Amino acid sequence: MHLITGGAGFISVELTGRLLMAGESVLCVDNLSRGRLELLEPYLGHPRFAFREVDCGDYDALSRAVADRHGTEPFTDAWHLAANSDIPAGVADPRVDLNDTFMTTFSLLRVMKDMGVASCRFASSSAIYGDLGDKRLDEDAGPLHPVSNYGAMKLASEAQIRAAVEAFLPRADIFRFPNVVGVPATHGVILDFVRRLKNDPSRLVVLGDGTQRKIYLHVTELVDAMLCIAHAAKHRYNVFNIGPDDEGVTVRFIAEAVCNRVAPGAEIVYGNGRHGWIGDVPTFAYTNARLRGLGWTPTLTSATAIAKAVDEIARQEGFA
Amino acid sequence: MHLITGGAGFISVELTGRLLMAGESVLCVDNLSRGRLELLEPYLGHPRFAFREVDCGDYDALSRAVADRHGTEPFTDAWHLAANSDIPAGVADPRVDLNDTFMTTFSLLRVMKDMGVASCRFASSSAIYGDLGDKRLDEDAGPLHPVSNYGAMKLASEAQIRAAVEAFLPRADIFRFPNVVGVPATHGVILDFVRRLKNDPSRLVVLGDGTQRKIYLHVTELVDAMLCIAHAAKHRYNVFNIGPDDEGVTVRFIAEAVCNRVAPGAEIVYGNGRHGWIGDVPTFAYTNARLRGLGWTPTLTSATAIAKAVDEIARQEGFA
Repeated sequence: MHLITGGAGFISVELTGRLLMAGESVLCVDNLSRGRLELLEPYLGHPRFAFREVDCGDYDALSRAVADRHGTEPFTDAWHLAANSDIPAGVADPRVDLNDTFMTTFSLLRVMKDMGVASCRFASSSAIYGDLGDKRLDEDAGPLHPVSNYGAMKLASEAQIRAAVEAFLPRADIFRFPNVVGVPATHGVILDFVRRLKNDPSRLVVLGDGTQRKIYLHVTELVDAMLCIAHAAKHRYNVFNIGPDDEGVTVRFIAEAVCNRVAPGAEIVYGNGRHGWIGDVPTFAYTNARLRGLGWTPTLTSATAIAKAVDEIARQEGFA
Repeated sequence: MHLITGGAGFISVELTGRLLMAGESVLCVDNLSRGRLELLEPYLGHPRFAFREVDCGDYDALSRAVADRHGTEPFTDAWHLAANSDIPAGVADPRVDLNDTFMTTFSLLRVMKDMGVASCRFASSSAIYGDLGDKRLDEDAGPLHPVSNYGAMKLASEAQIRAAVEAFLPRADIFRFPNVVGVPATHGVILDFVRRLKNDPSRLVVLGDGTQRKIYLHVTELVDAMLCIAHAAKHRYNVFNIGPDDEGVTVRFIAEAVCNRVAPGAEIVYGNGRHGWIGDVPTFAYTNARLRGLGWTPTLTSATAIAKAVDEIARQEGFA
């Protein structure tokens, strides 16, 4: 049985579908603070699928929820996607990232130790690298200076998992995600822009000067890469950057793509400075050479992933 | 006013003395789980010194203890030394490192944010690097793969502090400590060997095969380096390896030094393997070039620091 934490989030929807299609059983757990149960609608009632509303940071609750299913089918794999995804919220109050990002890892590892679970797969983030400027980062890059509590607690989670591999965990895969786009969209820059333009099709106000440049990956390709790594990586502890091998696209590019799709002719008003908010990293790209070494390459670039997601999210929000 | 967390530990005793001598006020806080109040005996009654028994992981308690003194003299500097120092205990139960190493950092940063404190100085560790073999590590080395919960929670603490510097903290210094020796000794390999030989002067049983090689620094030099960095480092966020620039010494060297001092002729019995325990790093050395760049160099090598500490600890334990 595969456990997915953050199971009612948008990446989980894609992953759950792929695991069920492959004949696996899936237990999704989520505290529904940002996740939404209706995203899992397609799987409710599936004989190999279950959902439990659980705060994964609560060891006792998580332990009970998992033990309950573990009886019928052994719990073998954890996909740890639970995290606070709102970076500014975590800067304002560090308890958000503590509880939702760090303590979920801590409790999950305790439960896995209790139950002798074989593998942990963790949704880490490019945010662990911090703001290293134009350096093109590989997985062994240092120093690691995260500039947000989000990035700090992701790095802290990686560290906990690494120590667990030394002590008891047979296998862990660390996935360092770039910005992930696609549907069902629940948050993120594209959805934000689409909704603002729905309210006021004449004008889009953008945080920062629009020159921030980052890499983007479509959720379908992200999950494809995760499954490839889980299948093909050879070590007990594997760390992989997942993403396209390009220079990324700017916020300006995204703003223009969204306007073209949902409000052609809207005026785009930029702010000042390259930082959208505290904890934002204005320029980011890394190398996916290690992942290409496993034989996986994304078919979409940052630009085509954005174009695809803009269209999907426009439809989701009611644009024809 | 300088706050020292882990204030009843052995490094704090040296640091408190130096700060008081420099005319500063010092508040030591400690939960006395491993710290011992009698170590602070020389300072009790000093007009610029205070001690409070507080669990630093408890935000409310720490906040009250600090606010109490903050009224008379503003709290400007934190020296964060609180941590679990028993690595195997943290491997057996991760809650030990969670509470004593990670949550102390989390709570301290919240208190510092509340009070607008200027600088945080953190006792990090070579354990954040993990087991990188014979690589000679500088402060920007990667990857960071700690192999114990101790190392994981030290890295997690560094990450939190880095994010705090981005959000609110004017200044932070990260000190990466090697093994630190000296008196008053409360734990560590020398004290352990001395006490075992006191019980049985005929025989010393050593974990592992004795070939583990690490670098050692005397506590007086450690505190000297910390004060030098606090004074001379130029950035808002400074990371420094502190230690001698040598290859370290083996466990065998230490065992022989202790036997020569307290039980000449004792038989030394070695175990098997290079790992003394889970989470142990068998070989470790790093470069102190950045610290030398500030003009600081240790006067003792690993070998002479051990020799000095063996003599001091033997006296502490009643050997003439």
